[in-house]
Amino acid sequence: MTASSDAARQQLVDNARARAGDGPVRVNAEILREVVKIQPFERWAGLEVLKAEDGQVETRIVLRPDEMTQHHGFLHGGLIGFLADNAAAYAAATVVGDVLSAQYTIHFLSPGVGEAFRARARVVKAGKRQVVVSVEVIAEQAEGEKLIATASALILPAGAAAIG
Amino acid sequence: MTASSDAARQQLVDNARARAGDGPVRVNAEILREVVKIQPFERWAGLEVLKAEDGQVETRIVLRPDEMTQHHGFLHGGLIGFLADNAAAYAAATVVGDVLSAQYTIHFLSPGVGEAFRARARVVKAGKRQVVVSVEVIAEQAEGEKLIATASALILPAGAAAIG
Amino acid sequence: MTASSDAARQQLVDNARARAGDGPVRVNAEILREVVKIQPFERWAGLEVLKAEDGQVETRIVLRPDEMTQHHGFLHGGLIGFLADNAAAYAAATVVGDVLSAQYTIHFLSPGVGEAFRARARVVKAGKRQVVVSVEVIAEQAEGEKLIATASALILPAGAAAIG
Amino acid sequence: MTASSDAARQQLVDNARARAGDGPVRVNAEILREVVKIQPFERWAGLEVLKAEDGQVETRIVLRPDEMTQHHGFLHGGLIGFLADNAAAYAAATVVGDVLSAQYTIHFLSPGVGEAFRARARVVKAGKRQVVVSVEVIAEQAEGEKLIATASALILPAGAAAIG
Repeated sequence: MTASSDAARQQLVDNARARAGDGPVRVNAEILREVVKIQPFERWAGLEVLKAEDGQVETRIVLRPDEMTQHHGFLHGGLIGFLADNAAAYAAATVVGDVLSAQYTIHFLSPGVGEAFRARARVVKAGKRQVVVSVEVIAEQAEGEKLIATASALILPAGAAAIG
Repeated sequence: MTASSDAARQQLVDNARARAGDGPVRVNAEILREVVKIQPFERWAGLEVLKAEDGQVETRIVLRPDEMTQHHGFLHGGLIGFLADNAAAYAAATVVGDVLSAQYTIHFLSPGVGEAFRARARVVKAGKRQVVVSVEVIAEQAEGEKLIATASALILPAGAAAIG
Repeated sequence: MTASSDAARQQLVDNARARAGDGPVRVNAEILREVVKIQPFERWAGLEVLKAEDGQVETRIVLRPDEMTQHHGFLHGGLIGFLADNAAAYAAATVVGDVLSAQYTIHFLSPGVGEAFRARARVVKAGKRQVVVSVEVIAEQAEGEKLIATASALILPAGAAAIG
Repeated sequence: MTASSDAARQQLVDNARARAGDGPVRVNAEILREVVKIQPFERWAGLEVLKAEDGQVETRIVLRPDEMTQHHGFLHGGLIGFLADNAAAYAAATVVGDVLSAQYTIHFLSPGVGEAFRARARVVKAGKRQVVVSVEVIAEQAEGEKLIATASALILPAGAAAIG
């Protein structure tokens, strides 16, 4: 899985590169919203990019009960994993540009009860060979936010940013 | 995420329990196919249960490019994670009945290139307090099968099976 | 690995239980220092328990270059893993009493350069069936503290505390 | 933690490189035994390298009850983690030469009961940017071998092999 190149995005990236000079292209929320549009599964999920800068990303999905749930009507664990993995890759991309998700570990803490869900990712370490990201997945519940999962991910820099 | 109770499934479980006596209800492929039907996200994914017995499970999904892919047309990593997590929980359920996914770690080895994908899960250890499961995710490619991800999961026994 | 019963510790635990009534015995720094004394490997490592209460633990070891290092004279990764795993188990024990380490994931961020090292563990979720703990391993360097590893662990409640 | 360069080892590596031509230096059991000698903690542990070739490594330690155990006299979990991590790095080094351990996940399946312990590591995927390794830790018990832990590790190629 990559937060990566395509016609639509390439234009944005090229623009950013032109503005930024020769350094790695660090994607931001504007770019990531374009990335989501060209990723059919993320579009299907209705993924919103609320924030993306300086190694920190916040994303959000709204529950569609007829397609996204398990048998109790809660958000399916598969989508909790998706939120965590995706936010981690996007957070790494704000720091090093193109990335490859290599590995993640997730802990499920509470059922996915809620009408919308957010992932908050934060880069813990950005090195030349690896980016380590910490993620929290949160349910929007009537009583407020509830932490439903934590994850850590190892993301590999890819492409120009990795070489440069 | 649970491989768990509901009206439709409860009947099957009750039948199995009646046949099995007092031991934990170890689900099989027949029961798991009913479980899939009452899980909207798994139904959306078109999850097939090819095999489920004695701690071993094999599942499969067919790629729908307009909904399941990332920008290169490969299976989205979010669905690779889902396949691994789900097969692990189902494999544990064949041994201890009702379960809760607590944690998993996944390694992405190759892009999700293929027209269909399988998860093969195998219980490594089934204890009273934890079930550890090893999973491989495989792409069906023109040249044959390709390993695209490996995962290990820690599943918690839940409900009657955990108590008994 | 358990933070667990033995003659010396049992006395402390019994005393604590007597004072606490029927709830689970939540160990503290005083008890954990006794636990360290009866664990030959932790004694060998010179493990200090700086803090242990309410799901938070801080431990420390001082580098002995002739026994604890790799070839560059840095703390060996095996001991970084030990620090993380151990602090996680101890943090869980402050909340639920006897525990079993089931699983952990560690990320190595920087070499183990320093003369002493600390692990700081914090319980993220304490449930009946699992305790999830987050850990940071820190090197004491001339310039100050440096984060060298992060970990998350899944700890299983064991014994009386788990039943009660 | 690295399976890496030093005066003693460098000679062996240089010799190997001279014999092998320009490709990455893939370490073998002979080289790894020299590496162990210059790693104080591995020497302290009495680490034996039984096998190391083509992405597969087997190592062994003999229990010293007065220094390596927890309070029940079993191998301390810290040393189970060390065995897994170390064998993973060494297995990767047989394929890509110099390496850095980036991440591992371990599952503890059974107590460390036995008089000696082995780690068996196998490279699952060796890419340019990551090597993924699967490990089993086994106790030598009177009744035969017993699997006490499983792990997976992500190892980063480093140095010449990574660049070449």
